[in-house]
Amino acid sequence: MSRKPGDGKLRRAHLERLMHYYHFVSERIAQHTSHAVSSAELASVLNMDDTQVRKDLAAIGVQGYPRVGFKCAEIAQAVRGVLGFGQTSKAILVGAGRLGGAMAAYRGFSQYGMTIVALFDADLNRVGSVVGGHVVQPIQSLEMAIRRHGVRLAILTVPAEAAQELADRLVATGIRAIWNFAPTGLTVPSGVFVRHELISVGLAELSYFLKGTEGEDDTHGA
Amino acid sequence: MSRKPGDGKLRRAHLERLMHYYHFVSERIAQHTSHAVSSAELASVLNMDDTQVRKDLAAIGVQGYPRVGFKCAEIAQAVRGVLGFGQTSKAILVGAGRLGGAMAAYRGFSQYGMTIVALFDADLNRVGSVVGGHVVQPIQSLEMAIRRHGVRLAILTVPAEAAQELADRLVATGIRAIWNFAPTGLTVPSGVFVRHELISVGLAELSYFLKGTEGEDDTHGA
Repeated sequence: MSRKPGDGKLRRAHLERLMHYYHFVSERIAQHTSHAVSSAELASVLNMDDTQVRKDLAAIGVQGYPRVGFKCAEIAQAVRGVLGFGQTSKAILVGAGRLGGAMAAYRGFSQYGMTIVALFDADLNRVGSVVGGHVVQPIQSLEMAIRRHGVRLAILTVPAEAAQELADRLVATGIRAIWNFAPTGLTVPSGVFVRHELISVGLAELSYFLKGTEGEDDTHGA
Repeated sequence: MSRKPGDGKLRRAHLERLMHYYHFVSERIAQHTSHAVSSAELASVLNMDDTQVRKDLAAIGVQGYPRVGFKCAEIAQAVRGVLGFGQTSKAILVGAGRLGGAMAAYRGFSQYGMTIVALFDADLNRVGSVVGGHVVQPIQSLEMAIRRHGVRLAILTVPAEAAQELADRLVATGIRAIWNFAPTGLTVPSGVFVRHELISVGLAELSYFLKGTEGEDDTHGA
């Protein structure tokens, strides 16, 4: 175990907020606009109040400076350490459809320590084509590739009906974490971690906001 | 305001968990497998403990039954009410690339009360083509379409460098909520709600898990 001493186990919502802070400060660092950021700026990214930001950062050992705010580089370094971005995780991507293609083509994952090493699809019309810089491999080569690359992380961007069978194959071959974009739940043995990504989750917040503004205009703070 | 009386303002993380419960029970209802669900089953979807589930559901007025658990239909109805899925939200989608195409083609949004009414792209090679059942319209028609349909919600699936200018145009034409998939922050006036969707956010949880299992095997609960 290499958790930060004393921080206990961080909760999902906390980890996700850290990703948003990390993305924000990384963008600021890249643009050379400022070395510092205020908790209010970070709070506005998530439409919340800044008390939460200060708590989240304190929990990973980042403190603000009077009249300066937080240093972007310190936030970035702390998040990278806590989330393990320094250690590269190899991943395979299963499903080369629209969403899988978007994921394969996305260049931003490297800043989070993730490298996609191979891309698979069951559709022979897609096999052999190049998607996001990867040649699509036949689904039959899945097990061989996982073993050869020593991969423990798999991204599933397949239709719901194909997901469970593929998850079983992945787990049987040594995959320990599945990033599941199929719109269905998966059953896996204890010791395997599944993060079920529902693209619609964001609609919760948007619908809730829009519902709250029904019949009004502009009375909500951003 | 049409919030559920007494529940105050629900937080982002809570809203998101509600979406996961909703998706889980909707799937169960559709498959006719069972009318009921336990808090432990719902907790496992989010890799957390069931105390949180019971708190989340109690906060929206859903109670369990002894020896039965929670009724799927009651959860679904309560979430629909709180999140406003009963009222249909029309949305426009800006950016018909890979991710925009996946969003346009996704049929699941209707169960959350969202209908995409028009799809736009700045690339003339894409204009006129059919993506996910929508004819891609030129970006010049954006304002006219927003006014004609009375749309308040926009989905942005454009490159980072195009996002702010488009957001300005959307807001100037009456858009009140932006679902931002561009990998950059947006500045909007007070009263406009932006949800910044970072596809990489999920990596936080996966990286954290994988980091915690470095050098171990199978000692974590799923």
